[in-house]
Amino acid sequence: MAQTTLRLSTTGPGLYDFTSEAARFVSRNCAGEGLLTCFVRHTSCSLVIQENADPDVRRDLDEFFRRLVPHGDASSMAWLRHTTEGPDDMPAHIKSALTATSLSIPVTDGRLALGTWQGLYLFEHRDHPHERQVVLHLSR
Amino acid sequence: MAQTTLRLSTTGPGLYDFTSEAARFVSRNCAGEGLLTCFVRHTSCSLVIQENADPDVRRDLDEFFRRLVPHGDASSMAWLRHTTEGPDDMPAHIKSALTATSLSIPVTDGRLALGTWQGLYLFEHRDHPHERQVVLHLSR
Amino acid sequence: MAQTTLRLSTTGPGLYDFTSEAARFVSRNCAGEGLLTCFVRHTSCSLVIQENADPDVRRDLDEFFRRLVPHGDASSMAWLRHTTEGPDDMPAHIKSALTATSLSIPVTDGRLALGTWQGLYLFEHRDHPHERQVVLHLSR
Repeated sequence: MAQTTLRLSTTGPGLYDFTSEAARFVSRNCAGEGLLTCFVRHTSCSLVIQENADPDVRRDLDEFFRRLVPHGDASSMAWLRHTTEGPDDMPAHIKSALTATSLSIPVTDGRLALGTWQGLYLFEHRDHPHERQVVLHLSR
Repeated sequence: MAQTTLRLSTTGPGLYDFTSEAARFVSRNCAGEGLLTCFVRHTSCSLVIQENADPDVRRDLDEFFRRLVPHGDASSMAWLRHTTEGPDDMPAHIKSALTATSLSIPVTDGRLALGTWQGLYLFEHRDHPHERQVVLHLSR
Repeated sequence: MAQTTLRLSTTGPGLYDFTSEAARFVSRNCAGEGLLTCFVRHTSCSLVIQENADPDVRRDLDEFFRRLVPHGDASSMAWLRHTTEGPDDMPAHIKSALTATSLSIPVTDGRLALGTWQGLYLFEHRDHPHERQVVLHLSR
């Protein structure tokens, strides 16, 4: 068993790759089989596993969520009550609930059992820069 | 390793906090590092980790999901086939698929590694009162 | 601890039940308490736990997601950038992000602690047949 906390700096909405940091943590701590759990310590960003090849996939993903959950100053969101922290705050909480706060990935022969096209991403939903924490927990 | 089952009574849609029950279970069973997995044994309610400060965040979250997945008697949902269990049943299954059935939270020094603003919630999607079960599994 | 990889053949969008395969793997490898984690090695299909009784629930679930995320040739999706892999590809990635890539289910007395009405499903989002891999990881 091993644990560490990644610190990731974000500069606005979108996906931030932390696959290599997670893979390094796993290779240092496990030579055989195990399970890596990633947990984000926030409610206005989230975690997703997505395609790691074409950057347009990540852009389209972010755009879909902006259209599904517009900022609080959009007329379609006039019903929002929680608006004091800015027009991007409550939509960020909603997008967080629609994606994942924790993800678990099996480890085989000391390596993450990700598919060829899978990458691990922090999904930032706030407009301004943030320091984000992702706890990595490896069980064997 | 330890397991228990929480029983939570719900009285209609919304978020029900079980953070303190989960924290108590963890502190009784783990002094060091571990991983708590929460699993809800139903398909018409779900689990979310959300902001624990302003209750309006939970109200807005519930309202967003009601608007995204209206009850079966709304004209926009006239295509639904599964309607025999009431207008709130199939929307509840959909909301369950859009959120989480299981959540895993690392434990550090015998405490849940939740962020300052994170709480653990059962998200009820049915209109009538229900008894809900959440299995807690702690691995070390 | 034990691991295996299920191979599932899909023939278009919808839910594919793998509850019995998962239950068999668990009963062979665990007589007491444990935790089963299911992980799908793809980003255009996903995992859901849903009602296992009325097949209309699965049909309605698939239909909801088709309406929420229409194919790329729908006028409402004209903003998509990632279109080279077909009109069903980027919507598949989005549906994958809206549901789950990993799921963890406690094991009690050597059996999955699923509720009476819960089944484990691969949720295929692509139109053409695919071979899909789901890694099962059992920790004790």
